[in-house]
Amino acid sequence: MIGLSSYAGVMDSLMNSAEEQQASSPLTNSWSKIQESSKNQKPKGVGGFVLVHAGAGYHSESKAKEYKHVCKRACQRAVDQLKAGALAVEAVAAALVELEDSPFTNAGMGSNLNLSGEIECDASIMDGKSLHFGAVGAISGIKNPVLVANRLLSEAQKGKLSAGRIPPCFLVGRGAHDWAVSHGIPPCPSEKMATKFSLSAYKRNKRKMELAEKMDTGQNQTKKRRQSSENENGSGCLDTVGAVVVDLEGNVAAAVSSGGLAMKHPGRVGQAAHYGCGCWAENACNMNPYSTAVSTSGCGEHLIRTMLARECSAAMQSEDAHQALLEAMQNKFISSPFLTSEDRVLGGVIVLRCCRCVEAQPSQNIQGILVEFLWSHTTESMCVGYMSAQDSKAKVIPSDKITGKIICALFVGQFICPG
Amino acid sequence: MIGLSSYAGVMDSLMNSAEEQQASSPLTNSWSKIQESSKNQKPKGVGGFVLVHAGAGYHSESKAKEYKHVCKRACQRAVDQLKAGALAVEAVAAALVELEDSPFTNAGMGSNLNLSGEIECDASIMDGKSLHFGAVGAISGIKNPVLVANRLLSEAQKGKLSAGRIPPCFLVGRGAHDWAVSHGIPPCPSEKMATKFSLSAYKRNKRKMELAEKMDTGQNQTKKRRQSSENENGSGCLDTVGAVVVDLEGNVAAAVSSGGLAMKHPGRVGQAAHYGCGCWAENACNMNPYSTAVSTSGCGEHLIRTMLARECSAAMQSEDAHQALLEAMQNKFISSPFLTSEDRVLGGVIVLRCCRCVEAQPSQNIQGILVEFLWSHTTESMCVGYMSAQDSKAKVIPSDKITGKIICALFVGQFICPG
Repeated sequence: MIGLSSYAGVMDSLMNSAEEQQASSPLTNSWSKIQESSKNQKPKGVGGFVLVHAGAGYHSESKAKEYKHVCKRACQRAVDQLKAGALAVEAVAAALVELEDSPFTNAGMGSNLNLSGEIECDASIMDGKSLHFGAVGAISGIKNPVLVANRLLSEAQKGKLSAGRIPPCFLVGRGAHDWAVSHGIPPCPSEKMATKFSLSAYKRNKRKMELAEKMDTGQNQTKKRRQSSENENGSGCLDTVGAVVVDLEGNVAAAVSSGGLAMKHPGRVGQAAHYGCGCWAENACNMNPYSTAVSTSGCGEHLIRTMLARECSAAMQSEDAHQALLEAMQNKFISSPFLTSEDRVLGGVIVLRCCRCVEAQPSQNIQGILVEFLWSHTTESMCVGYMSAQDSKAKVIPSDKITGKIICALFVGQFICPG
Repeated sequence: MIGLSSYAGVMDSLMNSAEEQQASSPLTNSWSKIQESSKNQKPKGVGGFVLVHAGAGYHSESKAKEYKHVCKRACQRAVDQLKAGALAVEAVAAALVELEDSPFTNAGMGSNLNLSGEIECDASIMDGKSLHFGAVGAISGIKNPVLVANRLLSEAQKGKLSAGRIPPCFLVGRGAHDWAVSHGIPPCPSEKMATKFSLSAYKRNKRKMELAEKMDTGQNQTKKRRQSSENENGSGCLDTVGAVVVDLEGNVAAAVSSGGLAMKHPGRVGQAAHYGCGCWAENACNMNPYSTAVSTSGCGEHLIRTMLARECSAAMQSEDAHQALLEAMQNKFISSPFLTSEDRVLGGVIVLRCCRCVEAQPSQNIQGILVEFLWSHTTESMCVGYMSAQDSKAKVIPSDKITGKIICALFVGQFICPG
């Protein structure tokens, strides 16, 4: 049931930044089907890596080019930050801003409209270094929800508020909007956040819904629900966005942003605002040899109830990252006891894991950070891109290339960043 | 640092429903300092057990009697449900309604007011049988937020909505209010939810806050924050409420409800609405020998970032429940790497764990459910109560009895319900 999709055919050398693992390395894994190599590459003073996604869902082939472009631009934004010396958490926020600003993704600008025809966004960010977390849910009238989440994170790091009050890590609705504006984040009129595409999708979805309800009139309520056709409206628009980053110092960070399911009830909050569900980042520590960062996409309710981001992060402490991710997706998501009543489980993850590897390349005396990156999804397609700070060339696996690969896990590469 | 508070002195026989464990039982634990016994008690057709809390915090001794009464009434409500044949999830919701309705608890009626002088509540419920979850965050104008969470849970169990839309498990703010009203839950004018006590506390807190900010004027912002005095306002009102229940069939359920921190920012959502953080319930399965249910109370941000409910539930699969809870509180909460920047970690949990024990009392041929119940807290006090469906006599440990016990774990008893 689980298949490894090997993209040897479409995978070029990884931006000339990859270092092939030596067989003698304790971290060499036999499953590394694709190893990016550029043996002559000398480590520079610039390190870090970003992996982004424009969602797991059912991407339209006609928009494949747009998804590819936005993934590239998001990678570039993160790398620009890394080159300027930013920490992972700032770089990941920068990538998210670019993804949110695209009218083609279901986040920020151009998000899905809810039942009332309004845009309400969820976003969260986690810093693997401080383990702080910030999130906003069902927020309207803010162009870049991830910036509010990031600001909540950084404000909480400053310590208590006046009179010893504990700063919030999660704000929703109108309160989140007002907090953002009072912290210097400009409001954006809601009508500017809707696009021609999102408005026409809303009208189409509303017609479909009314038709479905009309057809069901008079039928038994339970029967009606069970017999409902597959969610063509919602599942067509699962393209939540996210990113994971490791910086020059080896710190990891993760973020996620979403407009939520199309035609969702006002006030509905999905996994993108939910701790442990939308994103997770944890630097290596005594107990965990690997730093890990995860961002998820898909049906929010499925991702909440399985806490998929945290589960995948925990699984990444196993030696074989690829096998661990496949097993996590199978056992903690697809066959999860928390989702036994669901006929189809929809989701995808991007994963980064890193460790210091002082002895990985003894012949070249390279000391650095071994970076491994993977993704997996149960949806028809998932669009991802990645870039190293060393050469700033993005590699994007557009959604149309992986259409039809249900339950697949992709391992793309491992390489060493200077660090 | 960790001490076991043995309440042998104040502990009467547990409502005549307890059965002493035999030394031959594989589940006998040497740590059971207090074993409730009534060897001559024959199992009846009525089973089930409820454990409630009126919060971990700094309860006023002057209100100890009120807390005791509300805990008793909440236990009675759950037991009434169990006797009427209700499942654990319905019984736990009934207990929460009683706790919310008390003007003395920080949940529903009489909740803390936020910065704007408004009441915004969080609540969630989890059914260990179906593993479904329902939650509301920052909801106003609803007398019993737990009923909205419970309705979300039960609606989600019915399957998809029209046109295949996935039903929400988490709603916030105005959307949550409107969903509740459209599902037959009556609105309650906000002014009716505030009490004399909550209004005067608000005014007092506001004055303190303004004074603190005035005193800090001109000082360095970072310094100001670090030097802020202990949160006398917020931490004095941590009395979130919750309950855990096991029914006659051995199903477990957990729920939690909170008005949140005093003077919180509007839109702030705490652990009570957060999956894995406010409550957790999971029936035994192939992998887990024990059914577990947990409800938490304390500082929401601390409880979110440590996912304390889920962590305690997972820990309860160890053989020694008492030791496991102490270790979980120490390693996953007090010394959690997620809270290293916090000067004081505030929280409490109530825990129920159960397993079928067909051979526990072979001489008496008793087949039933072995129930163990515990609580632990780092706050100065925590008020808990419990009741068995067999005799409906509540036992309440009032907050004043445990004042001063910082970082304590209490194991109260184990007994066998017919089931």
